[in-house]
Amino acid sequence: MKTVRLSLRTLLIGVIGFLTYTNLFASNVVVSPNGNLALEFNLSSDGMPIYNLSFKGSEVVKTSKLGLRFTNVDDMTSGFTFVKADTSSFDETWTPVWGEESEIRNHYNSLFVTLKQPANEHIMQIEFRVFDDGMGFRYVFPEQPKLDYMYIKEECSEFAMTGDHIAYWIPGDYDTQEYEYTVCLLSKIREKYEAVLELDNASTTPISPTCVQTALTMKTSEGLYLNIHEAALIDYSCMHLTLDEKTLTFTSTLTPDGTGMMGYIQAPCVTPWRTVIVSENAAGILASRITLNLNEPCKIEDTSWIKPFKYMGIWWEMISGKGTWAYTNDYPSVKLGYTDYNKCTPNGTHSANTANAKRYIDFASEHGFHHLLIEGWNIGWEDWVGDWKEDVFDFVTPYPDFDLEEVLAYAKAHDVELIMHHETSGSTRNYERRLDTAYQFMVDHGYHSVKSGYVGPMIPRGFHHYDQWCNNHYLYCVTKAADYKICVNAHEATRPTGICRTYPNLVGNESARGTEYEAFQGNSPHHTLTLPFTRLIGGPMDYTPGIFDLYIQNENRKPGSPRVSTTLTKQLALYVTMYSPIQMAADLPENYAKHLDAFQFIKDVAVDWQKSLYLEAEPAEYLTIARKEKGGERWFIGGITAENARHSRFALDFLDKGVKYEATIYRDGDKADYETNPLDYKIEKKIVTSKSKLDIALARSGGFAISIVPIADKK
Amino acid sequence: MKTVRLSLRTLLIGVIGFLTYTNLFASNVVVSPNGNLALEFNLSSDGMPIYNLSFKGSEVVKTSKLGLRFTNVDDMTSGFTFVKADTSSFDETWTPVWGEESEIRNHYNSLFVTLKQPANEHIMQIEFRVFDDGMGFRYVFPEQPKLDYMYIKEECSEFAMTGDHIAYWIPGDYDTQEYEYTVCLLSKIREKYEAVLELDNASTTPISPTCVQTALTMKTSEGLYLNIHEAALIDYSCMHLTLDEKTLTFTSTLTPDGTGMMGYIQAPCVTPWRTVIVSENAAGILASRITLNLNEPCKIEDTSWIKPFKYMGIWWEMISGKGTWAYTNDYPSVKLGYTDYNKCTPNGTHSANTANAKRYIDFASEHGFHHLLIEGWNIGWEDWVGDWKEDVFDFVTPYPDFDLEEVLAYAKAHDVELIMHHETSGSTRNYERRLDTAYQFMVDHGYHSVKSGYVGPMIPRGFHHYDQWCNNHYLYCVTKAADYKICVNAHEATRPTGICRTYPNLVGNESARGTEYEAFQGNSPHHTLTLPFTRLIGGPMDYTPGIFDLYIQNENRKPGSPRVSTTLTKQLALYVTMYSPIQMAADLPENYAKHLDAFQFIKDVAVDWQKSLYLEAEPAEYLTIARKEKGGERWFIGGITAENARHSRFALDFLDKGVKYEATIYRDGDKADYETNPLDYKIEKKIVTSKSKLDIALARSGGFAISIVPIADKK
Repeated sequence: MKTVRLSLRTLLIGVIGFLTYTNLFASNVVVSPNGNLALEFNLSSDGMPIYNLSFKGSEVVKTSKLGLRFTNVDDMTSGFTFVKADTSSFDETWTPVWGEESEIRNHYNSLFVTLKQPANEHIMQIEFRVFDDGMGFRYVFPEQPKLDYMYIKEECSEFAMTGDHIAYWIPGDYDTQEYEYTVCLLSKIREKYEAVLELDNASTTPISPTCVQTALTMKTSEGLYLNIHEAALIDYSCMHLTLDEKTLTFTSTLTPDGTGMMGYIQAPCVTPWRTVIVSENAAGILASRITLNLNEPCKIEDTSWIKPFKYMGIWWEMISGKGTWAYTNDYPSVKLGYTDYNKCTPNGTHSANTANAKRYIDFASEHGFHHLLIEGWNIGWEDWVGDWKEDVFDFVTPYPDFDLEEVLAYAKAHDVELIMHHETSGSTRNYERRLDTAYQFMVDHGYHSVKSGYVGPMIPRGFHHYDQWCNNHYLYCVTKAADYKICVNAHEATRPTGICRTYPNLVGNESARGTEYEAFQGNSPHHTLTLPFTRLIGGPMDYTPGIFDLYIQNENRKPGSPRVSTTLTKQLALYVTMYSPIQMAADLPENYAKHLDAFQFIKDVAVDWQKSLYLEAEPAEYLTIARKEKGGERWFIGGITAENARHSRFALDFLDKGVKYEATIYRDGDKADYETNPLDYKIEKKIVTSKSKLDIALARSGGFAISIVPIADKK
Repeated sequence: MKTVRLSLRTLLIGVIGFLTYTNLFASNVVVSPNGNLALEFNLSSDGMPIYNLSFKGSEVVKTSKLGLRFTNVDDMTSGFTFVKADTSSFDETWTPVWGEESEIRNHYNSLFVTLKQPANEHIMQIEFRVFDDGMGFRYVFPEQPKLDYMYIKEECSEFAMTGDHIAYWIPGDYDTQEYEYTVCLLSKIREKYEAVLELDNASTTPISPTCVQTALTMKTSEGLYLNIHEAALIDYSCMHLTLDEKTLTFTSTLTPDGTGMMGYIQAPCVTPWRTVIVSENAAGILASRITLNLNEPCKIEDTSWIKPFKYMGIWWEMISGKGTWAYTNDYPSVKLGYTDYNKCTPNGTHSANTANAKRYIDFASEHGFHHLLIEGWNIGWEDWVGDWKEDVFDFVTPYPDFDLEEVLAYAKAHDVELIMHHETSGSTRNYERRLDTAYQFMVDHGYHSVKSGYVGPMIPRGFHHYDQWCNNHYLYCVTKAADYKICVNAHEATRPTGICRTYPNLVGNESARGTEYEAFQGNSPHHTLTLPFTRLIGGPMDYTPGIFDLYIQNENRKPGSPRVSTTLTKQLALYVTMYSPIQMAADLPENYAKHLDAFQFIKDVAVDWQKSLYLEAEPAEYLTIARKEKGGERWFIGGITAENARHSRFALDFLDKGVKYEATIYRDGDKADYETNPLDYKIEKKIVTSKSKLDIALARSGGFAISIVPIADKK
């Protein structure tokens, strides 16, 4: 690791400071290392902190206000005088435990302004970091005599847009991100809003008709791409963005707790970073690492136990309606410690039974998968969501038909490790009370990773998935898991904000509409073309791709139910385009058995990367990514398209020169179409070098996947 | 233990059933074993459950409605049809681990009615138990096909009074019971209400001008005494009583959670018992054991480690302003993990320092006290209440000037055991997260008991001290403590409801205005004459008597500050009249050293009893109790009076016949007066037998204490 810290307060390279000490006006400009981005900070005549951001001399964020309002102390939105500005530069290259690339450069110039409200002697600081690819700022409250506790009424950070950009957005919601993305002009958000609401979700609290979630990607009429998000969301509530359509200005909208309080902070403290990524091409949004860079370095000393993996699971059976998590239909509701599962009638549909688990283990083992998730193994599923029930699960008691010891022994004998499943039903107290026991149970039984879930309204009742209380809970579970050397993949938790840099045992989150919706209400063809530019900006998503049974056929499925809106090879491509250090092969063994030739790609594809190249990118339209595996010479390429068929054309000039590779290309068949013929695919092999160029046709909502292996390795 | 269960459904002794199966009307009467109390249950013509209670043929509770209202299912207040009534009798004598007597008889006749709402097939049952000294009822929801979860909007249990009784009451409040009692007619509650509010309390949420707390004692114009309370308040919110002044009817008022929900229950379940004690004399209210009897038997298998004790403490120093819990005045606020206590200036007033602890240990050891509470030993007190702060204490880190190991070793060498102190500041999540570590720390360091505290607004924010969430928390801490063989004395927790029968490691609660208020706003002379008839009905109170420095003199005390409103001997009497298995000698060693002759009573008095006799009793006026120690032959008598001087006259006919005893009488001096001459006391010894009669003068707010020891034992 190379670390250079230049804490030169007088540093002028890239930093221009115009400081006037009239206490009325202060102007400071800090520019990015390459000089393209310039952040200007000012105090308005009434002492309001304001900023603007320019790219190559043109504004990308117009003059925007900064500050917070409180219920217990004076608002910090105006009345400030300027105290001082410190500037510095930082340049470091660090090594993530896992990621899209093996080394990440963290290079920025910073401006750190100190402001004071003379009336009450409150001090607020604002820290700006300007990178070549974007900017982050946060509020800093140093220890001070006259200010300690702040109850936040609202954060008033603004992002004033320069025009009526195209936005790729989902509605602001305190409890869910499981929405379809809408692509429209900022000015059209309000009229599209109602149609997008997903009120069938187990827990949804939409905010307002112009409130959207981050990470929000936009495209200007000049073809510039912007992304607004946050980084290091720790002990603070999650931010949404509310648009003022007249001024095209977004204002931060935090998530309230059960009392309506937006946050509770105590000096000394910092808020999360508010980030703006700026790029002349969409690929630049994907290549930006500012979200990770604005997080603290890894706090886990020994990370040797944290390893990316691919996994299969007893899961899609239940999602698709073939099986159930529940063991019996006898009871209208069940109670831990009361319900006697040995006295009830098994429903015959319980998927997590010993025999079925062994069947999955056999298949996983045969095909080189070393991890298997089993959901529904533990009691409580008869009655687990929708009633604000507190003690839903105990996380340690298997159903009678699931012989845990037998399954574990069988898995071990087949070199398969089980992944624990902890659905919490959003009941944070129940989970925290049982957490040590549950994690110790995992350690005792050889589990090293857990998928956790937060379906339904949160408990404490009245609290929200994205409020400070719950954010604090998710991180508590992650840090405690680290004590037990357990990796966490938390579903329905708050959206990631790069915290995995600090706690790399947080190997996954859902926090968006995943593959499961293909079986619920359906996912539109552009969905996976939008997620990388939005949800994935904060961290990996456990999207669980790999559905081969695109018609979702089982005896319990009603005619006309949604089915997967992709071609089969688009499912393969997702293993490359949807970055995650854990990747599920989500379909059933019997469905993979029908297409073992295509399944080969899922077996081969890596999950940890030395480098990633964004070859073609346009949000909601197309995306082609090439990635080189970490610790090896293989490359994998995935390309996908949305509603429109297209040709993907790119050069392989990133391959090592002079080396011959065998490329295996999994592509849409000539008559493939996601609606009429999704299972039409072709697999071709060819020799390629760094001089090769490829031209691959993609069907409507189609895709392709390529594995590229040096010939020398193919022995 | 003698147990007789008569589960005779057709039992007619004491039970008369008039059952009509028209589904429109059902009348059932169950009478007490001695025939004095009769409970009649009916369904009104519109299917509303109603009851009334008579004593010796006269109504004491007029026809009153029963039922609950919900937000998610149909109200259960009417529309019921009668399904069946089961009757039975029960007679058992059980042995409490500690208590006012060594054996308790649990003898009642019961009526168990099953009701159904035909419209929705919901079944509700009501269970009545009628004892000789009172009655309890609760709602029972059996497992049933059409009803599982119930969100309670309000419980509608009524208690219709027969006249404008005298009430001994404190205002209904969701967060505190630390009020002065008011004695007035029911019809006058409203006009007295405002004056009683204690809004200086760190956390107070008064309910309404006619809402009062239980246990509520009343006196009828015929001289009958009534007490309304609840028993076995488990996983439910705490009940208050709201008076309709026109009908003189109380209706239950539950405590809402952060969403306003009054309770959340899932069938099968039971509510707490609602109790009415009825007695022709005030002593009968004190002698009633129905609150304990309506709780479940002890759930702790091995109770050998649960032992009553007397203790001293580093506590009154801080209460009286002489010392501080905090170690430094340097910081406006502190943060766990941030504040460095080794870098700050000690304030010089921190009481829990090593030297002072040793001084207390010396004194306690010299005078035979084997337990010492030390508050303020752990970091965080600079900034612990009033700001809804979450992570206030860690419960394991001593201040720099408190050498825990040294103090522990010194205590051990002097046969003194330290009592742990866990102030939580109402931050339940912080406490639960650290509970295992904190309890294990206690075990590792030889602590066997903890005083916990819940000062300030509760966290989760918006929740209340007495709501279901918090009640669940308190019991969680008690049951978890049992796993570590730890006894709990929880201050500011919910009022006790006899749960100590089931979990006898709950050795104390505060839940009322304790001795500390003598140093705050003052306690009126009748306060300790009211508590035994109200607060103590549910269980022992850690009142912390024994203040000898009645003028509360220290250099930091401002002139005109409140002082103790009793004579010195009244302080002694409280060790007998305020029952508790743990009793503190609350004053400072130097104050006891000035009155070692009087201190002798505190040294001698027992804390666990074979029997208790209520010799003279009138709420808010006078009280004389004689108690015989468990496992010995000594008797201790305490007598107290309120504002009026009086003579206490009683016979010692409860002493063993033919045995000579030496009585040591600690009484008010001839010129004693709580206002003008509180320190005037006399100590006399005399020989007494079962034929002796005593006549002792009590000064205004005075008292006396007597120890009676068989001469044979005095060698």
